[in-house]
Amino acid sequence: MTITLTGFANSPDRGQGQARDMRLRWALEEVGQPYRMELFTFEELKQPAYLARQPFGQIPVFEDGTVKLFESGAILLYIARRWPGLLPADDNGRERAAAWVLAALNSIEPPILELEQSWFVDRGHAWFEERNMMIRGRIRTRLGQLSDWLGDAQWLEGPFSAGDLMMVTVLRRLDAQMLGEFPALAAYVARGEARPAFRRAFADQRALFEASKR
Amino acid sequence: MTITLTGFANSPDRGQGQARDMRLRWALEEVGQPYRMELFTFEELKQPAYLARQPFGQIPVFEDGTVKLFESGAILLYIARRWPGLLPADDNGRERAAAWVLAALNSIEPPILELEQSWFVDRGHAWFEERNMMIRGRIRTRLGQLSDWLGDAQWLEGPFSAGDLMMVTVLRRLDAQMLGEFPALAAYVARGEARPAFRRAFADQRALFEASKR
Repeated sequence: MTITLTGFANSPDRGQGQARDMRLRWALEEVGQPYRMELFTFEELKQPAYLARQPFGQIPVFEDGTVKLFESGAILLYIARRWPGLLPADDNGRERAAAWVLAALNSIEPPILELEQSWFVDRGHAWFEERNMMIRGRIRTRLGQLSDWLGDAQWLEGPFSAGDLMMVTVLRRLDAQMLGEFPALAAYVARGEARPAFRRAFADQRALFEASKR
Repeated sequence: MTITLTGFANSPDRGQGQARDMRLRWALEEVGQPYRMELFTFEELKQPAYLARQPFGQIPVFEDGTVKLFESGAILLYIARRWPGLLPADDNGRERAAAWVLAALNSIEPPILELEQSWFVDRGHAWFEERNMMIRGRIRTRLGQLSDWLGDAQWLEGPFSAGDLMMVTVLRRLDAQMLGEFPALAAYVARGEARPAFRRAFADQRALFEASKR
């Protein structure tokens, strides 16, 4: 049964691999499962046909014949349990890898997304600079704690896991200057991006963006 | 083996059941597992001893002897798979319940938390009113989509699941006026709060708050 993922027909990030299909392309490459993309315009994502598959009109939706899923975090956890390659062998380690997936999404990503949104929503308003500084302060607190946890380890806990995969995709949203304030985290992201599975997934989504320009 | 959960020694919500141990107290009541609370002051949560258990100094941490977990979403998913009562019987339904847990945390909760934080961070600044309106607009978009999905069903998909449990705890953070704009969602939250397991969990956390005042 062919795995399908939904994605943007015209990626708003211009091929930087920030759309939420990227984390699942990477995961499927890590576990060696082929997949096919189904692409949608922003207009199509708002139509009833798509909303019946994804209640909020978001990408990605994942289907593998028996299971139809949405929310990139839930899909990553499913992939990690379904095929070997993204979870440690012991029970506690497997659960803790899931905890790190949730930590990436719920403790690290929120202020990073708020900073991104502020660029679009607050820019041009009198409060933009002050809010920008406040949000950056919140991000620094979290990055400091994460860097302290990582120490000089290669990955968050034991071997590379789904938790690292999600954390690296979340940290990739930061600008280079901010990430550069935490050298251990910058090196951690670079280790993730150097993995062959990441590179294949990144090249595939980039090729799609390049094709969409023509 | 006794299950333990960490929580606040002095809950900042004054017993409203908004702290993140509440969703797990509720889940453990639904699956009929007794547990014990371990309480910490804000000062203790910042100490190295606690940070070794929870990298960001947050509650709750869950331990059941073999598994030590953090992030309320990951803990809920573990409880739901470990004991019967919070997931449907079929594979696709089980995975979709997990998708709704993630949707509650990542597609619904973020603007609700941003509204709460704005009350503390932006109040007194010139931009407070305008930001407040913008964030409320984003919340309304999501609540409208969620209400459309729910329609006149009792729960999000099939029987009550971990997905409903998380969604109800997230919607409970809204003020009554905003939730009241979406009568189907207000009724959905009331159905969740009427469950005996919710009521037991709520009474227990409330009793702890009352005791902390003395």
